[in-house]
Amino acid sequence: MSEAPAGFAPLERPGPFIEQLGPLYLPEDRAVRHVVAMRAMNKHLNTRGVVHGGVLAALVDTAFGIVISRSREPRIPSVTVHLSSDFLEPVREGEWVEAHVEIQRTGKRLVFAQAMLKVEGRNVLRASGVFAIAAPVK
Amino acid sequence: MSEAPAGFAPLERPGPFIEQLGPLYLPEDRAVRHVVAMRAMNKHLNTRGVVHGGVLAALVDTAFGIVISRSREPRIPSVTVHLSSDFLEPVREGEWVEAHVEIQRTGKRLVFAQAMLKVEGRNVLRASGVFAIAAPVK
Amino acid sequence: MSEAPAGFAPLERPGPFIEQLGPLYLPEDRAVRHVVAMRAMNKHLNTRGVVHGGVLAALVDTAFGIVISRSREPRIPSVTVHLSSDFLEPVREGEWVEAHVEIQRTGKRLVFAQAMLKVEGRNVLRASGVFAIAAPVK
Amino acid sequence: MSEAPAGFAPLERPGPFIEQLGPLYLPEDRAVRHVVAMRAMNKHLNTRGVVHGGVLAALVDTAFGIVISRSREPRIPSVTVHLSSDFLEPVREGEWVEAHVEIQRTGKRLVFAQAMLKVEGRNVLRASGVFAIAAPVK
Repeated sequence: MSEAPAGFAPLERPGPFIEQLGPLYLPEDRAVRHVVAMRAMNKHLNTRGVVHGGVLAALVDTAFGIVISRSREPRIPSVTVHLSSDFLEPVREGEWVEAHVEIQRTGKRLVFAQAMLKVEGRNVLRASGVFAIAAPVK
Repeated sequence: MSEAPAGFAPLERPGPFIEQLGPLYLPEDRAVRHVVAMRAMNKHLNTRGVVHGGVLAALVDTAFGIVISRSREPRIPSVTVHLSSDFLEPVREGEWVEAHVEIQRTGKRLVFAQAMLKVEGRNVLRASGVFAIAAPVK
Repeated sequence: MSEAPAGFAPLERPGPFIEQLGPLYLPEDRAVRHVVAMRAMNKHLNTRGVVHGGVLAALVDTAFGIVISRSREPRIPSVTVHLSSDFLEPVREGEWVEAHVEIQRTGKRLVFAQAMLKVEGRNVLRASGVFAIAAPVK
Repeated sequence: MSEAPAGFAPLERPGPFIEQLGPLYLPEDRAVRHVVAMRAMNKHLNTRGVVHGGVLAALVDTAFGIVISRSREPRIPSVTVHLSSDFLEPVREGEWVEAHVEIQRTGKRLVFAQAMLKVEGRNVLRASGVFAIAAPVK
């Protein structure tokens, strides 16, 4: 249950927290730039036995950063200013969760985007955020 | 740097995800019911070298659940319906982060609350949420 | 400039506030159930000479209520629990503003929905909300 | 019922929309810089007979702008980037509604603030927002 479906490859160099949380996966088809995914595992569960809201918030926040970064050349580094999440349905151990990100506006200083987390086409978490365009990481 | 200040004790039976994320800490003085804290560690960092937003979102979401639960006898189990977070300042490795939660309204079905994450009195993350009162965990 | 495009009819019995704010318009084609619109007028402007954010928030909140109500038979009366709005671009006097609403989940007690306000296909305000299903108005 | 309590004076030059919505009131004691208020009137009601959520959103958005503007000399003009509102309790015709604003962080480009609308000490709406510091109005 810990493996990804065909067509997904692990995110490389994710940083310490996402390495511990993940692996996260990206579509191997680089034309599909708006999806980031993960497999829900036992280590993600809360005391109620479903995936902790913080795991889903971390997934969606990371997905926003990756998709925004790749939306332009040269890449756009961003930091999260605001994140709003609505929890529609619980996610269970073993489920494959895909974050589908849509960028609504890229301004000079701010980017606006929304996302839906989906499990087999079912909506489980709706999110939107405001992101400040940052100086590149040295 | 991984230890808590005097007067804090680790949260017991946190569930798999928070066990991996934490430890989280509660004030030993049970009269102080609105604070949940953690030490920022290397495992919490993002690729920019500061604490990942998902870590802070997980901390604040957990803090909401704990403080709401303990706000009444018998305890109130809740699930997060909506979580809104504004990221005011980055948090760095080694910093002690306290979530201060304030409940604004407890209705028959919904609880409304807000929180501020603070590092040495500095505001680093503002959050608010809507929580549905849930059936007790069996 | 105060009239609606062909194919729209004024919302009837809108209540005192929306009567003063509006008129609001609905598509005459009752199959198009997810759009509510208005013409931006001088009375909607703020001190900067663009449409006041409160006007757009009022439009989108009303649109959510109408679209949720009409999404089921018998109609679903709802009250707003949470409303989140991101202001992407200013709206100017004379522009025709359409709220496009999408319902993401209708539960037993709560409805989750998002909306985009558009001016000639341009995204101007992104919103999402959580709504409690209410007792019918007597 | 349309008059203000002692110690409040009408907001001057509010722009077309707030002139129609209001009057809004500020404390005459200029040391009290964080409160903006209004009297709920019949013209503010929705079809359920309570104050429309859009009226409260407009009040709180305007209050944020005024309080941020007056928080520094020279004044800080701002535009709303994000507004998050939780509706705790309905407001009824005749009630005096006070918006109490608290600024959490003023950066170089962004201001973060939260507010509570209160009716006789009762919490009725919680809001938070992100505001971009704007060029002055010519």
